Amino acid sequence: MKNAILLLFVFSICSTTWSQANKKTEIDTKVSELLSKMTLEEKVGQMTQITVTFFEDPKKPGHFDPSKLKQGIQDYHIGSILNVPNPGAPTIQRWQETLTAISNQANKTRLKIPVLYGIDAIHGASYTAGATLFPQQIGLAATFNTDLVKRGAEISAYETRASSIPWVFSPDLDFPRNPAWSRMWESFGEDTYLSSKMAVALVEGFEGNNVGSKYNVASCMKHYIGYGSTTTGKDRTPSIIPERVLRQYDLTIYQAAIKAGAKSVMVSSGEINGTPVHASKHLITDILKTELGFTGVVVTDWKDIIYLHTRHKVAETKRDAVRIAVMAGIDMSMVPEEFSFYTDLIDLVQKGEVPMSRIDDAVTRILRMKFELNLFQNSFANLKDYPKFGSAEHIQEAYKTAAESITLLKNNNAVLPLNKNEKILITGATANSMKYLNGGWSYTWQGENSDTYAADKYTILEAFQNKIGKENVLYTPGADLENENDAEIQKAVDLAKDASKIILCLGEKNYTETPGDIRNLFMSSSQIKLALALAKLNKPIILVLNEGRPRLISDFEGKMNTVIQCYLPGNEGARALIDIIYGDVNPSGRLPYNYPRYPNSLEKYNRKYTESIAEEEQNNDAKYEKSYSPQFEFGTGLSYTTFKYSNLKIDKNEINTTDEINVSVDVTNSGKRAGKESVLLYLSDNFASITPEFKALKRFEKISLEPNETKTVKFILNQKDLQFVNEDLKWISEKGTFTIRVSDLNKDFSLK
Amino acid sequence: MKNAILLLFVFSICSTTWSQANKKTEIDTKVSELLSKMTLEEKVGQMTQITVTFFEDPKKPGHFDPSKLKQGIQDYHIGSILNVPNPGAPTIQRWQETLTAISNQANKTRLKIPVLYGIDAIHGASYTAGATLFPQQIGLAATFNTDLVKRGAEISAYETRASSIPWVFSPDLDFPRNPAWSRMWESFGEDTYLSSKMAVALVEGFEGNNVGSKYNVASCMKHYIGYGSTTTGKDRTPSIIPERVLRQYDLTIYQAAIKAGAKSVMVSSGEINGTPVHASKHLITDILKTELGFTGVVVTDWKDIIYLHTRHKVAETKRDAVRIAVMAGIDMSMVPEEFSFYTDLIDLVQKGEVPMSRIDDAVTRILRMKFELNLFQNSFANLKDYPKFGSAEHIQEAYKTAAESITLLKNNNAVLPLNKNEKILITGATANSMKYLNGGWSYTWQGENSDTYAADKYTILEAFQNKIGKENVLYTPGADLENENDAEIQKAVDLAKDASKIILCLGEKNYTETPGDIRNLFMSSSQIKLALALAKLNKPIILVLNEGRPRLISDFEGKMNTVIQCYLPGNEGARALIDIIYGDVNPSGRLPYNYPRYPNSLEKYNRKYTESIAEEEQNNDAKYEKSYSPQFEFGTGLSYTTFKYSNLKIDKNEINTTDEINVSVDVTNSGKRAGKESVLLYLSDNFASITPEFKALKRFEKISLEPNETKTVKFILNQKDLQFVNEDLKWISEKGTFTIRVSDLNKDFSLK
Repeated sequence: MKNAILLLFVFSICSTTWSQANKKTEIDTKVSELLSKMTLEEKVGQMTQITVTFFEDPKKPGHFDPSKLKQGIQDYHIGSILNVPNPGAPTIQRWQETLTAISNQANKTRLKIPVLYGIDAIHGASYTAGATLFPQQIGLAATFNTDLVKRGAEISAYETRASSIPWVFSPDLDFPRNPAWSRMWESFGEDTYLSSKMAVALVEGFEGNNVGSKYNVASCMKHYIGYGSTTTGKDRTPSIIPERVLRQYDLTIYQAAIKAGAKSVMVSSGEINGTPVHASKHLITDILKTELGFTGVVVTDWKDIIYLHTRHKVAETKRDAVRIAVMAGIDMSMVPEEFSFYTDLIDLVQKGEVPMSRIDDAVTRILRMKFELNLFQNSFANLKDYPKFGSAEHIQEAYKTAAESITLLKNNNAVLPLNKNEKILITGATANSMKYLNGGWSYTWQGENSDTYAADKYTILEAFQNKIGKENVLYTPGADLENENDAEIQKAVDLAKDASKIILCLGEKNYTETPGDIRNLFMSSSQIKLALALAKLNKPIILVLNEGRPRLISDFEGKMNTVIQCYLPGNEGARALIDIIYGDVNPSGRLPYNYPRYPNSLEKYNRKYTESIAEEEQNNDAKYEKSYSPQFEFGTGLSYTTFKYSNLKIDKNEINTTDEINVSVDVTNSGKRAGKESVLLYLSDNFASITPEFKALKRFEKISLEPNETKTVKFILNQKDLQFVNEDLKWISEKGTFTIRVSDLNKDFSLK
Repeated sequence: MKNAILLLFVFSICSTTWSQANKKTEIDTKVSELLSKMTLEEKVGQMTQITVTFFEDPKKPGHFDPSKLKQGIQDYHIGSILNVPNPGAPTIQRWQETLTAISNQANKTRLKIPVLYGIDAIHGASYTAGATLFPQQIGLAATFNTDLVKRGAEISAYETRASSIPWVFSPDLDFPRNPAWSRMWESFGEDTYLSSKMAVALVEGFEGNNVGSKYNVASCMKHYIGYGSTTTGKDRTPSIIPERVLRQYDLTIYQAAIKAGAKSVMVSSGEINGTPVHASKHLITDILKTELGFTGVVVTDWKDIIYLHTRHKVAETKRDAVRIAVMAGIDMSMVPEEFSFYTDLIDLVQKGEVPMSRIDDAVTRILRMKFELNLFQNSFANLKDYPKFGSAEHIQEAYKTAAESITLLKNNNAVLPLNKNEKILITGATANSMKYLNGGWSYTWQGENSDTYAADKYTILEAFQNKIGKENVLYTPGADLENENDAEIQKAVDLAKDASKIILCLGEKNYTETPGDIRNLFMSSSQIKLALALAKLNKPIILVLNEGRPRLISDFEGKMNTVIQCYLPGNEGARALIDIIYGDVNPSGRLPYNYPRYPNSLEKYNRKYTESIAEEEQNNDAKYEKSYSPQFEFGTGLSYTTFKYSNLKIDKNEINTTDEINVSVDVTNSGKRAGKESVLLYLSDNFASITPEFKALKRFEKISLEPNETKTVKFILNQKDLQFVNEDLKWISEKGTFTIRVSDLNKDFSLK
C-alpha cells in the first residue's frame, strides 16, 4: 500500500512536470505567432507601463476619463498599467470595475492583447480596502517560519486576484547594509540565507504550481540589485558594492527566487559604483538574463529611465536614456505619466539605434507572462470565486504571523507576562494609531490613512482596553513623534502614579522611500525625553517598539525592564502583541538584524574578525572602545520558557569536496510553558583567502516544544555552504577547518 | 642678459638631471655588487625591521641592552629599526647617542651595512624633545598653501636629520571616506586633488633635490591603500572600495607622490573587499610596483604580517603569513618585537616557497635607499650642522602655518575680531592643555605628555592671558571631555556673568589609531551640556574647536555667534588662534572636508547628483528630508575682509581632445583689511557614462590682496582634468558639456 502511494506520487510529479513543459511549448508557440503579427508600434506599446491615475478624470478622482484610457490602450497600445486609483485602496468591487473598463478597451484593439495590471501589494493586498494585512517583510523574516510566510503569500495572492490584479511588486529582495535606509523594513534584514529562504517562500506562495490560476499572481523580485545598500542610507542614492561582494551576498537571494520561478523583476533605482542599474547591460543582460537564465520580464521602477537623464546624468537626453536602458536589457518601462518612452523607442528602432531583436526579446517576455497568467481568458475577477477575501480564516493567519514575528528582546525580572488585573499606563506616540502598525504601502503609498481604512482594527491602546477592560487602562499620548512637549510628558508622569506598570509605545511615523529618509538614527528626541522622564518613576516599563528600522534607544534602554520589537506587524499586530504581553502567546520571533547601539557603529552580525578584535590582541597602551557591541544581536529573541541545547553531533570530522555533513542537535524545553524555538545553525570558516566572516547563518528550523519535551533537529550541510566568492568571482571552497555553531555548542570539521 | 640667465638656468637643470642619472647608475652598481656578496641570512635580515624598545634594558628604560642590540644587528642582520625609545621624545643629543650605538654595531658586521632608522615624525620631528611642531596634516590641507606646507616639510626634515634619523613615516595619503575615522586628521581631508598637491609639497619638502644631504629625509607614503575608508569608521577594519573607485580617487594621490619621488611606502593595515592589502599581489606588485613603476621600499605597518594570521585569518600559520606577504610584494616587515619573520622567511626560501629573485628585489630596494640616503657615509648627525633646530625661525614658520590653517566657519554680527579691553570668559575642556592642540603622534604615540614636553608653549588660556593680561581673562574648565558634571557647568555659568563674551573651547582628547575609535560622532554629551547652558545667558559665544575630526555640533551650533575650527594646530596653535581672535591675523583657512550636521548623513562635497535632488524633482506627496545639508561645506572659510569675484573667462568654448583651456578670474578685496584668499576652481562634467560628481576641485591658488586691490588669477585646465575612470578601469573623457565654477561664477564649454 505504501509503495502504491509512492508510485502514485511519483506519477503525479511526472505528470505535473510533463504538463508544465507542454504548456510552456504551447505558450511559446502562441507568443511567437502573436509577435509575428505585431507592428513596431504595438510591440513598443507592450513595453510601456502607465500609472492608472494618468487616465483619471481630474474632476472625478478615482474614475477614468474614457478618452484618455482609449488613447493609452488603443493609440499607444500600452501593455501595462500600475498603481492605485485616487484616493487609494478601492474595494474589490471598484477594482473589478476598473479592470473591466481596461479589459473592455483592450478588447477593442486589433490584436486584443490584455493589459497587465501590476500593484504594490506589499503586506497582503495592501491597496485594496478590506484586505487582510500581514506584518511587513521585516516581520516575516523575524518569524523564521517559512511555512507561515508561504501561507501568508498564498492569502495575499488570493486577495490580490480577488481585486482582479494578477501581478504583485513583491517580494522585496533588497539587502540593506545601512540600517537607516527608509526601506529597511521592506527587506528580510541583514542575512543572505534568511532572505533567500523567505524570498522563496513568498514566490512559491504567490505563484503556486500554476501562476495562471485564479488564486495565484506573478511575483516581482525587487529591486535588482544593490538598491538597499546606499552609502549614506538615503533612498535612491549611490551604492558602492564590488562585484565579488554583490555575488556573495545580494545576488544569491535573486538566484534562489529565480530558481523558485519568479516571473518578473523590478530594477533598482540606485547606482552601483557609478553605474545606474537601469543603464547596466552587465547586470541586467549579462548576469541576470544570460548567466542566471532569467526568462521573465524586467520592469523599471517609477520614472527611472527618465531619471537616467535628469538625476543620474548618464544620458544627455531623455531619448538617449531610453536607448541606454533598453539596450541594457529593460523589457518594460514604468514611464509612467506620459508617452515619451513609446515615441522615443519607436524612433530609436526606426533609426537603427535599437535592433528589433532587442524589442522582440522584451515583447516575448511580456507576452509569455500574459499567457502564463491566463490573461487572454481571464483579465478580471469573478467576485463569487473569492468568498474568503478578508475572512476570519485569513485574518487568523495574519494574526499568527504577527504573533510569531513580534520579538521579545529583553525581559528583566520576568516583568512579562503581565497579570490581567493590574492597572497599567499606556503612553507614547505610537500607542493609538493603525498607521504605526502598518507603515507605508498600506491603502496609500505612505500609509497615512490606515486609521480610516482599518477603523475596525485594534490599535495597541484599543487592544489593551479590549483585553483587560477600559477601567484598568490609563492612557495619554505623552509625546509627539517629532515635537517636544513638556506638558504632555508631565501628563504621562502624573498619570503613571496610578499605574503599577507602564507600557511605553515608541517608534516611527508611517513612511516609505525618500520621504522616510532620516539623518539621525537615534529615536526622536521628543520620545527619548518621555522615556527618560518615566524612567525616573522607578516603575517597571515595558518598551514597545513600532518601527521600520532600529532607531537607537541606547540613551534609555538600560532603564527599561522589557523591550519588545513589533516591527510593523500589520492590522492584527496589536492583538498579537497584547496576547504576548499577557502570556496567551509565548513569543518566538528573532531579530533579523543587528540592532545598533550607536549611530556610527553599524556592524553586522557576520562581521569580519578585524571588527571584533579579541582582548588579547588589544594594545595595553590605551583603552579601546571595542567596535562590536550591538544593542541586540541578530537572532536575539526571548521566550517565556527556556530551551537547552545538547548533543551537537556531526557525522564526519573530515570531509572531501563532495561530502555532505549531517548535523544533529537536541533541543529541550526546560521551562514550564510550551514554546516555539527557531534553531539557528551558524558556520565559521576559520581561515580563507578572502577574509572569512566571524560566522554566517547556514540553516534554521522552527520547532514547537511542550515543557520537558526534547526534539532532535537535523540539518544537512553541503559543499555550497562552505564556499565563498573569490577575487576571480568564482564560488570556491578551500581546505582547512570549519566550526559549526548551534546556540552555545560548537563542533569543528575539516575539508581535505 | 635675460637670455643668459635663462641659458644658465637650462644648463643648471640639465646638469642636475645628468648628475642624478649618473648617480643612479653608480648606486645601482654599488647595490648589485653588495647584493652579490650577501648570504641569504644577511638579505633576509635587511628585510627585518625591529622596534627600538625591543633592544632596551628593562631596568633602564630608554637605554640599550648592548647584548640585545648586538644580537639583532650581528646575529639577525636586521636592516632597520624604528620607533621612539622609552619614555618618549629624546633630545637630539640622546638621539645621536642612540644612532651612534646602532651605527657602531652595524660597523662590526661583515658587510658593514648601515641600519636604516625610521620614525613617525608626523607634524615636525614630533618624537624629538624641543622640535618645532606644526599643525597636523588636516590643518596643512586647510591652508591651501603648498609653498607654506613644503617649507614646513623642509624644517621637519632638517630637525629629523638633526635627530640623526633619515627616514620619516610621512606623508599620510589616506583618503578618509568616513569622518568618524580616528586618523581622519592625519590625512589631507576628503578631496583627491587637494590631497595630491599637499602630498607632493610634503614629499618635495622632505626629500629636496638630494635626499642624501644632511638636511633631507626619505619620505614614506602611507597607508597604501584604502586604509582611510573603513565602512564603520573604526581603525583597521574592513573597507569596501571597487577598483574603479580606488583608481579614480585613492590611487591618484599615490601617483602624484611617486612622481614627486617618494622613496618608500607603508602598506595599509586594512582589508579591501575581503583582501588584506598586505596579502594583495594585485595592489602591491601589479599596480604599485609594475604599473606605477614604484622603485622604492614597501614596508609593512606594525605587526601586520603576523596579523594576516591572527586577525585577518587569511593565513593558517604565521609562516604562511610571511609567504603570502612577501609574495605579494612586501620588501620590509615591521615585525617588530621578535624574529619569526626572519626565521620563517629563510625557511621559505630554503624550501623553494619564496624564490630568491623576490628576496633580491626587496633587498635591492632597501640597499638602494640606504645608498641614496648616504647612510654608508653618514649614519648619525653632527649636531653642529643643525643650529636652527627648534629655532625662532622654525617656530615662526609653524606659527604662520597654524595661522593660515585655522578656519573661521561662522562669524555672525562680526563678533570677531574682539576688542582687547573686553573681559572674557575662557571655558571648555580643551582650553588649557597642549594635548588638545597637538593630538596624537606628539612626543609619544597617543600624545598624552604634551604638557610636559611643551611646557614652554602656550595653551589657549595662556595665550589669552599673555595677549590681554590675566586681569581680563576669567577661566574655569566648565566641562570634562567625557564625564558630565553639573557643578562645573554652574561655575562657568556663574563666572560668565562678569564677562562680556565667552570663548568656549570644545573638542576631543588626544588620540590616534584604535584608541581613537568612536561610536558616536556627536561631540561628547558633557561638552554639549556646557554649550547649551552657556547659550542660555544670551552673551556672544565664540566656539573654538580643537578636534581631529568633525564632532557634530548641530545640537547647539545655532546658538553660537562664531565658530572657529583649529583642527590640531600644534605647539604654536594657540598663539595663532589668539592673533586671529584679536584681528592681528586675518583668517584664511578653508575647511578640507564637509563638516556633517547629523551622524547618519555623511555626504561628501563632490557627491553625485542623486544625493542632492533638485526641489523640482521632489515628489509633492510628502515632505522630504533633503539628504545633502552639511553643517559647513568643504571649502568654507571666512575672512575679516570680503572678496568679490568677476570676469570669469575661458579662452575656448569648444575644445578637442588635445586642447588646454585657459581660465582667468578677477578677485578683488572689497573690504577694509588686507587678506588672503584661496581661489578654488571646480569642474562639473554635466553628463557622463559613469554618474558624474556634482563638482570636483581641479585647481586652487592662494593670493594676498590689500584693500581695493584686484588680482587676476589664471588657471590652465588640461585633458586629464576632464577624465574619469570607466568600468574598464581606463581614464577617459567623453564628449559633452562641462561647467567651470569659481566662487559664484560659472562658464560652460564643450568637448567635441
